[in-house]
This record gives sequence, C-alpha cells and structure tokens, in this order.
Amino acid sequence: LALLFLSNEDDPKAWREELARRLPDLELREWPQLGDPESIEVALVWKPPPGALQGLPNLKAILSLGAGVDGFLKDDTLPDVPLCRMVDPSMTTSMSEYVLLAVLRHHRRFDRFERARAERRWAFELPKPAPARTVGILGLGVLGGDAARTLAARGFRVLGWSRTPKSIEGVICLSGEDGLSTVAAESEILVCLLPATPDTKGILNADLLGRLPEGACLVNAARGHHLVEEDLLAALDSGRLEAATLDVFHQEPLPPDHPFWNDPRILITPHVASYSLPSTGADQVAENIRRALDGRPLLHVVDRSRGY
Amino acid sequence: LALLFLSNEDDPKAWREELARRLPDLELREWPQLGDPESIEVALVWKPPPGALQGLPNLKAILSLGAGVDGFLKDDTLPDVPLCRMVDPSMTTSMSEYVLLAVLRHHRRFDRFERARAERRWAFELPKPAPARTVGILGLGVLGGDAARTLAARGFRVLGWSRTPKSIEGVICLSGEDGLSTVAAESEILVCLLPATPDTKGILNADLLGRLPEGACLVNAARGHHLVEEDLLAALDSGRLEAATLDVFHQEPLPPDHPFWNDPRILITPHVASYSLPSTGADQVAENIRRALDGRPLLHVVDRSRGY
Repeated sequence: LALLFLSNEDDPKAWREELARRLPDLELREWPQLGDPESIEVALVWKPPPGALQGLPNLKAILSLGAGVDGFLKDDTLPDVPLCRMVDPSMTTSMSEYVLLAVLRHHRRFDRFERARAERRWAFELPKPAPARTVGILGLGVLGGDAARTLAARGFRVLGWSRTPKSIEGVICLSGEDGLSTVAAESEILVCLLPATPDTKGILNADLLGRLPEGACLVNAARGHHLVEEDLLAALDSGRLEAATLDVFHQEPLPPDHPFWNDPRILITPHVASYSLPSTGADQVAENIRRALDGRPLLHVVDRSRGY
Repeated sequence: LALLFLSNEDDPKAWREELARRLPDLELREWPQLGDPESIEVALVWKPPPGALQGLPNLKAILSLGAGVDGFLKDDTLPDVPLCRMVDPSMTTSMSEYVLLAVLRHHRRFDRFERARAERRWAFELPKPAPARTVGILGLGVLGGDAARTLAARGFRVLGWSRTPKSIEGVICLSGEDGLSTVAAESEILVCLLPATPDTKGILNADLLGRLPEGACLVNAARGHHLVEEDLLAALDSGRLEAATLDVFHQEPLPPDHPFWNDPRILITPHVASYSLPSTGADQVAENIRRALDGRPLLHVVDRSRGY
C-alpha cells in the first residue's frame, strides 16, 4: 500500500510519523519520487501542479491537505476518483480563533486605537457590549458554522447566511437572496467564510458592501476570489466601510506594490487563519485511506459540480 | 432616603432609571446639589474630589462605580463607613473580552502583521496552537479569575498568580515569591490584573520583565501604578519583550509627548478594558443600599488596610 505525498506547505516527516502510527503498512512516497506508479492507491496533496496526479492507474482517492479545493478543480487532468477535503479539528479551531480575534479587534476598536497612535490621540469612547453588536457570517459549513457558534458563545448577535437553509443554536440562520439582504443590512462586522465556487466569485463587491451599515468592518478569511479588491478600496474611501481584515488575496504573497499595503485601515495577515496539524488531521486521513482500500464510501467527498 | 451620585464618567440618567426600578423611594441627588446633607445615607461615586464626601453625618456606605478603589484611599478625609467596590457582571465580561482580545492578538501575531505593513512584508509563519502557548495572569480576583477561566476555555495553558492561594479549574494556580518566579519564567504572554496596593506598586519592573521568556508580550489592564514605564521601554529595546498592550498609565489621558506613542510595539488603548453598565450593575448597588439601611453586612466591602 503506497501513498503519494505532495505539498510545499506541509511537513512530510510529521505526516509520515502520524500515519505510520495509524497504518503501519503504509508506505509514504514524497513527490516526485513515485517509485512504481501502479502501487500508488491514495494521494495526500496540497496545490498539486497541473498533471502531477496523472499516470497513477490504481489511484482510488485524492485527499486534500486543506479545506478549500478550488485550486484542484482548475486542473482538467485531475483523475476522476473521489476528491476529499480536509476536515481537521485544528483547521476549525484555528479558523474560529482567527475570526474571534478579527471580530473582537473591530468590536473593541483596537483598529481605531492602532490608527490613533500616529496622531498621539487618546481615542476614548465608551465600548459597546457584545449583545448590542451584530456580526454576519457568510458561509455556514464546517468552518463558518463553528465560527458562528464561537461568536454567539461570546455574546454577539450573530446572523449566518448559507446557500442552503441551516439551523445552528444561538445563530439567526438565513439563506437565499432575501437572507443575504438582511445579513448585509444589519452586519456591523461581516465575515466571509464561503467556499470558492463560480457562484461566490466576487460576492464581496460594491453592491454588497454598499448595503452594509455605515462604518461597517469586513473580515475575509475564505478566498481572495470572493472580494473585488477595487470595490473594497472604494467602500473604505467613501466611509461606508471603516476597516477590513484580510487573510486571502487574488495573488499570494500579496505583491509589495499592491495598494492594500498603503491603507492603514486594512490589516493584512499572510494566509494564516486556518491550518491543519498532522497530529489532529491524521485520524480522518487514515480513516479515508481504510475506506478507499475497502471500497467503502469516503468522508467529506467534494461535489465537483458544486465546487466544495 | 437620599443617595448622592458623583461621577464624571458615568451616566446619572441611566443610573437614576435603573435604581428607581429597584428602589422606588430612592431620591438620587447629583453632586454638587446635595440638598439637606443630613438626609443623604448612601453615596454612589467614582473618583470623588478630596473632601467631597465630608459633612454627611448620616452616611452609611460609600459605593464605588468602579472595581479599583485605590484613588479613593488616597483621600484622608474619606468618611469611615464601609466602602464597597463595584462587582458588575459587565465589568467582568468586558475585562475578560479585552484580555482575550489582547492575548489572541499577540498569540496569533497580529502585532507583528501590523508592524510588517510598514515594510510591505508578507510575514508568513506557521501559527502555534493555543495549548502550546503559556499565558500568565497576575491577580486572581473577580476580574483575574474570570479572565483566567476565559483563556483556559479557549485552550491556552494558563498560569495564575495571586497573593493568597486560590484554586480555579483548568488554571495552574500559584502564589508567593516562588510562584511568581514560575509564572515569570514560563509566561510567553503575561497579563496584569492585580489590585493597586502598596505591595504591587512597580511589580512590573526590570527584575520581573527580565525573568520572562525571550520575546514575551505584556498586557497591563490593571493600573499604571503596576508598571515601571522606563523598565518596559528598556525590556523592549533589549528584545526581552517583543510587544505590549497597555490600557492604563501613570498619567491618563497619556500625554502627547509620552515616549510610548513613539513605539509601534506598544498598543495604547484609552482605559477601556473594563466598564460597568447601569443595567447590570444596579442589582448589586440596590442590594447594598438595602443592606446599609437595614444595618446588615454589605457585599464587596474593601479592606482599607489591604487596599482592595
């Protein structure tokens, strides 16, 4: 039993150790050292170069090392076997921690206090309690749902929006165009955790940003794809938006000449919101390898037509 | 039954409404309009000018609108009646929210990302999970205890230190000089929530800061009194400390020529960490007024010799 490992952002040594503990017979091969391609039955990969997974006649499953598989689906040569996204408790915990931090930072006005330093200004204002603050979450999947629950547990009024109707205790769940209008109109802080699909491309545009309350803040921790970057700058310049926290960009790393670097109202974080850890992610990977070998249904299979 | 209200930072109208709901016979008088001084039995005050509470022969209790009463105790003319600190659920919630934000901001390196903007630098580094991060809390009173529980609930390894031994589930509680040495040696992020007493004055000094792990971060949300300001600047310059979040200062508002404004490693927040709300604080105030009139023991009485 051989597994092909391919990633520039994950540690093959840690994955080898964690998987060996769970599947002692597994042989982990690091791309591009394939050995006998016929013996490879599973691929554990992140951002594979186009064509990298071709020529593996016995491949039974492709397991992603990340939650978003939009990059994979652009590759027309991707083998037609089940593609599974990573659902690692660490990815969920780290994303909810990031969202909580980004939301609290706008809520408690640390964004303003950071900008006030340049003017040596003691910017006192009476803070607002969390129950009086409405936060909107776009996307209520594994990550969005957990972030919504985390914010609700800290006392915020949370509006959640998803393509299909959902129900989460303590969160006002909405869907459809009407639901999106309500979320936009009421969210003082709007968080995007949508999957990257053709339907969600550019959803954070002038129209949506223009419907937010005056002085709202935006957090995008999903994909650069969701945001129309010029529209964000225009919304900040008009005063509709007061500040933004962005973890994802059309081009990463964000180029040094990008206008976002000039704007103190935008906090740029270098795609660190969610990360997986081999120690917690290996359980699901090992389970999916067993299922693939036994011919049983896999967990967290991506619907390629839907894109997530 | 008359109550004297005196504060520049609290809203007399909101307090009048909330107290009227609980004690319909109470007459709230706003300082300096005392009316008949003999009819005043309770004072609800924040930062009273020295001598302001003299000449009230029937005063039975002084109720503080804030948690820290160190400012009151400097006034030698303060009447010798029970002095009670404010214990308002909103003060605790808002402080824990602030501490959580300040700790998460250092933990997830938003402090670094903010500084990286000036250099247009994509400062990627793999984040550290909360259980691998040790946070120390100095002070385990009502506020410190709740902050410690809040951080432990988010997965951090929390060391708490207090003058007298305490026990808090999920928190490693230490006391005494030995305990302080352990907390100092292990805290990657150190939070000060101590009361302001002669014993704690200047506790955040070169000696203590020098015992923190290399690159530690400091959060002071207690009193300016705790911090030796020159020692903080020296610890930042030596690299012992990487960053600090300060909500309190020797002089407030922090004067425009103060060196802290020059240092991008120090986040200055304008004494906003903890605030009380009449809607949640009035229950305890009303209860203490009833107890004072009935001659029963009051709640949250300050031990003047101890200072809190």
